Amino acid sequence: MNSPEFTWSAHASLSSVPTAVHQRLSTFFEHSEQEFHAIGSEFAHAVSILKNFTLLGGKRVRPTFAWAGIRAGLEGGGGTTSFALPADNPNPEFFLNAIAAMELIQACALIHDDIIDHSDTRRGHPTAHRLFQRRHIEKCWSGASEHYGTSLAVLTGDLALAWADDMLCDSQLTPQALAHISHPWRAMRTEVIAGQILDVTLEANGSESVEDSLHVNSLKTASYTVARPLHIGAAMVGADPRIITTLRTLGQDIGEAFQLRDDQLGVFGDPDITGKPSGDDLRTGKRTVLINWALQHGRSHHAQELRDGLGHATTEEDIDRLRAIIIATGAAEEIEQWITARSTRAIETIHSAGLEDTITAELVEMTTTLSNRTF
Amino acid sequence: MNSPEFTWSAHASLSSVPTAVHQRLSTFFEHSEQEFHAIGSEFAHAVSILKNFTLLGGKRVRPTFAWAGIRAGLEGGGGTTSFALPADNPNPEFFLNAIAAMELIQACALIHDDIIDHSDTRRGHPTAHRLFQRRHIEKCWSGASEHYGTSLAVLTGDLALAWADDMLCDSQLTPQALAHISHPWRAMRTEVIAGQILDVTLEANGSESVEDSLHVNSLKTASYTVARPLHIGAAMVGADPRIITTLRTLGQDIGEAFQLRDDQLGVFGDPDITGKPSGDDLRTGKRTVLINWALQHGRSHHAQELRDGLGHATTEEDIDRLRAIIIATGAAEEIEQWITARSTRAIETIHSAGLEDTITAELVEMTTTLSNRTF
Repeated sequence: MNSPEFTWSAHASLSSVPTAVHQRLSTFFEHSEQEFHAIGSEFAHAVSILKNFTLLGGKRVRPTFAWAGIRAGLEGGGGTTSFALPADNPNPEFFLNAIAAMELIQACALIHDDIIDHSDTRRGHPTAHRLFQRRHIEKCWSGASEHYGTSLAVLTGDLALAWADDMLCDSQLTPQALAHISHPWRAMRTEVIAGQILDVTLEANGSESVEDSLHVNSLKTASYTVARPLHIGAAMVGADPRIITTLRTLGQDIGEAFQLRDDQLGVFGDPDITGKPSGDDLRTGKRTVLINWALQHGRSHHAQELRDGLGHATTEEDIDRLRAIIIATGAAEEIEQWITARSTRAIETIHSAGLEDTITAELVEMTTTLSNRTF
Repeated sequence: MNSPEFTWSAHASLSSVPTAVHQRLSTFFEHSEQEFHAIGSEFAHAVSILKNFTLLGGKRVRPTFAWAGIRAGLEGGGGTTSFALPADNPNPEFFLNAIAAMELIQACALIHDDIIDHSDTRRGHPTAHRLFQRRHIEKCWSGASEHYGTSLAVLTGDLALAWADDMLCDSQLTPQALAHISHPWRAMRTEVIAGQILDVTLEANGSESVEDSLHVNSLKTASYTVARPLHIGAAMVGADPRIITTLRTLGQDIGEAFQLRDDQLGVFGDPDITGKPSGDDLRTGKRTVLINWALQHGRSHHAQELRDGLGHATTEEDIDRLRAIIIATGAAEEIEQWITARSTRAIETIHSAGLEDTITAELVEMTTTLSNRTF
């Protein structure tokens, strides 16, 4: 970030966020490695796993929406850069520290999620617990390698969660900006953990309730991924409460559409494009809104066949048969309509929010892209 | 805390901290339960497990040392209540919010630790992961009950870590007090996680290095349990840097003595008093400073017999034999001298710190009690 080529302005485009966030995270890890060097090599190794995990990928959706919130606040939302940036050094890069910190919360969520789901890979690389497990095996250490992997991944996720707050505190935003985002920042963390607790429990109790799965979506995706980041961004620059309410409303719609698209891709997505196995949700038996809708509204023999197949389908024929059932129940079409309804409503809300043209256009484009994505 | 009987002053005794912290945590959970009621019953259940875990016990050592730091700062250390408490409402109870938050960090550390150690009980009650596992069994849910227990306990620990920061932020201390404690607060969290990472890894790689086990003690106990809480307390009231350095130095000594006593009790402690199995560290094969010293300094046949027995001793005869070896190597006597040296040095430092008589006497008493405890 200190390179002379890098410049960042308070009106940088949404599409420039991922690269900038990557650079900022990279700098954060450089500093952390220096600061905690004295703790020794085993801790440094855990930090390097966290660093690689955080830097190796991800769409940076949350920081991008937080940036959209900042831009909306500044471009018609009643916010100002002077609310958030210190008068003696009003450097817009300080915004990046705060929004990049969300990726450390996400790192904790994913590292712990991968333990819970017994996942072997994430973004095409081995998951954190598998990397620690592999180290245990390679070093011929004593005890169970798999449990060692789980233990270290639990602790590394904890570190990411603690460091997310550190990165935010260190962002150099003004105390008033930090005070303004305190509530939504905290709510966001509780919501993602609560959403995950509900998700794991609904999977265990085999709930087929569309309402239950919508509730998980609302917490884990709509709020955590879109509505709260928009809220945090706008609050950071002291935007009007009215615009914050509007952003949260449209964020909820975009987030639900985003997750419902994920549900469709989890059944119908092209594995060459999604990078996940074909019919992944059918193989794992995940109870998405799409699948629960099919179970609730399908004819009883269809629902029973789907129920029996979920989590047990392994061949392409099995998967194709379950796909055909989901289509026959009308679920795929219904969810497609829900996506359209939510993204259409979100776009209407964006247009009526009274924001300047540029941020309006970028938000509309992002909504369309996320709702129609194929990956 | 709102009961009319409750009063708290900036000079409350160290011995009154545990009860006051308990009340404060209890109020925090009441508020959290109300705030997040709408998320639903499954989240409420996880919160109730965290609440019971946090309220059911513990010596409250960390908040007590933080309180000692506040008292030292105020009673001869150059700090003032007006540094930390808002001018329009200088309520000393606000200090309690901040120091009680440490118990939520500790709740995360213990809940995750119990997963790592496969522990069934903690403070005489089932561990969090076993409680979640039991719920899964009782409800006849699908999937593996044990893994469900682990998953929910990982997430509940995450919640505790996030809420620790929330409780601190909500403490109503002045922004300058919060800014002053930001660095030690953050260092404390990184140190306890790093100490745990080292501990798990040293157990896996079978290190017999006294230096390695001292390093773990330094991070996990001396710093996290004593030195940082003292530091945080004193920084909170704007104490002189000189007194903060002194408190950290004596805290390191007290903390090391505290942990070395723990090592002795882990081998020689009376199970009726410690509440742990007789010779617990010998049964689990933990590599403490005591045991590593015996392995390094014992004659080779003694060291070998001890090495072979660690983690495999099950009968009282096995345990007694390993105890006899540790005594024969001189380790027990050596560690006893280390405890005395550290607590003596800490007491000298306390006396020379220039603090007022009352806090000096209370700190000396606490040092003596912790170094000589039998539980």
